[in-house]
Amino acid sequence: MEENLVEKLIGAFMCLSGVGYKTAQRYAYQVLQEDEEIANNLAATIVEARNKIKICHECGNFSSNDICEICKTRTSKIICVVKEPKDVNCIEKVKNFDCVYHVLHGCISPLDNKGPDDIRIKELLQRVATGKYSEVIVATNPDVQGEATAMYIAKLLKPLGIKVTRLAQGISMGSELEYADEVTLSRAIEARREL
Amino acid sequence: MEENLVEKLIGAFMCLSGVGYKTAQRYAYQVLQEDEEIANNLAATIVEARNKIKICHECGNFSSNDICEICKTRTSKIICVVKEPKDVNCIEKVKNFDCVYHVLHGCISPLDNKGPDDIRIKELLQRVATGKYSEVIVATNPDVQGEATAMYIAKLLKPLGIKVTRLAQGISMGSELEYADEVTLSRAIEARREL
Repeated sequence: MEENLVEKLIGAFMCLSGVGYKTAQRYAYQVLQEDEEIANNLAATIVEARNKIKICHECGNFSSNDICEICKTRTSKIICVVKEPKDVNCIEKVKNFDCVYHVLHGCISPLDNKGPDDIRIKELLQRVATGKYSEVIVATNPDVQGEATAMYIAKLLKPLGIKVTRLAQGISMGSELEYADEVTLSRAIEARREL
Repeated sequence: MEENLVEKLIGAFMCLSGVGYKTAQRYAYQVLQEDEEIANNLAATIVEARNKIKICHECGNFSSNDICEICKTRTSKIICVVKEPKDVNCIEKVKNFDCVYHVLHGCISPLDNKGPDDIRIKELLQRVATGKYSEVIVATNPDVQGEATAMYIAKLLKPLGIKVTRLAQGISMGSELEYADEVTLSRAIEARREL
């Protein structure tokens, strides 16, 4: 009987991505053994976040209001299109770069039955059609789905006369040539620049 | 403003052991993006488990009742002493071995200001004094604190005329001699057995 409740807690943690039985067990025993504060705070914050956080009507990022803080305060003419809300975080960490965002909430992926209508491409077209923007940077991941989505968006937007760009591909800072894969190297060579 | 709630959720997950910012961020975004069911279930189970699970009066393991299922149903004369509730799980997985448990909830560790009175040694003495048991297996971890705790318990219990044993140490099944450390190897040699 009593094992079930511990097992149920372990099972609940196993629903988190990348959490197997051993990790879930560690979390569960920690929640049971440590300060009640930690457990209650975690539970309350999950519920609070789920209830209060919605999707910004403008960019699709998470927000506690109808329009998020970034859309409300920034007047950049550059829209950066990303796959997921967490990607906004990544780009926000880049200093000296000012843009607004558009979160697609996914990429085109026929294998997962995700077509252009299942992600927020229509909303992007509407935003671009307002004429407020001069450039769209498609910052989806450089994988098959991300590339396909970028091509699709570029094909739709170019006729509207807006500049559509993609993040440069090449070798990472601090990495070694030895460990770069062939496709990355070939793109880095293609996009080589004069010193 | 709205960033704070996402950050707060990330912070709540970071309280779990071994969870850094990136992992906490993954959990947080998953909780926000996936089925509300998963999030609510996790939060509710944490609260339910914290409220309902208590410590068994007899053995100290987690239980939803005053006396846990194992103490209620088993009549073994062997007490297996372990450091933490999760260790009960580990030993329960061993087939063909029947014992009851005693969870210490810690080990003697002067560096952490944990003395014999801070763990459930007194309760162990009381149980042994009932005369219901014939053997105490001290299954604390084979580290400094675990060994010290085992020595301390053995010193207390032996005058009571009860058999006190410790788990054998040696090389693990499937491991290679090459990778065994010297202390383990030396104990394996000491405890060698005739074929």
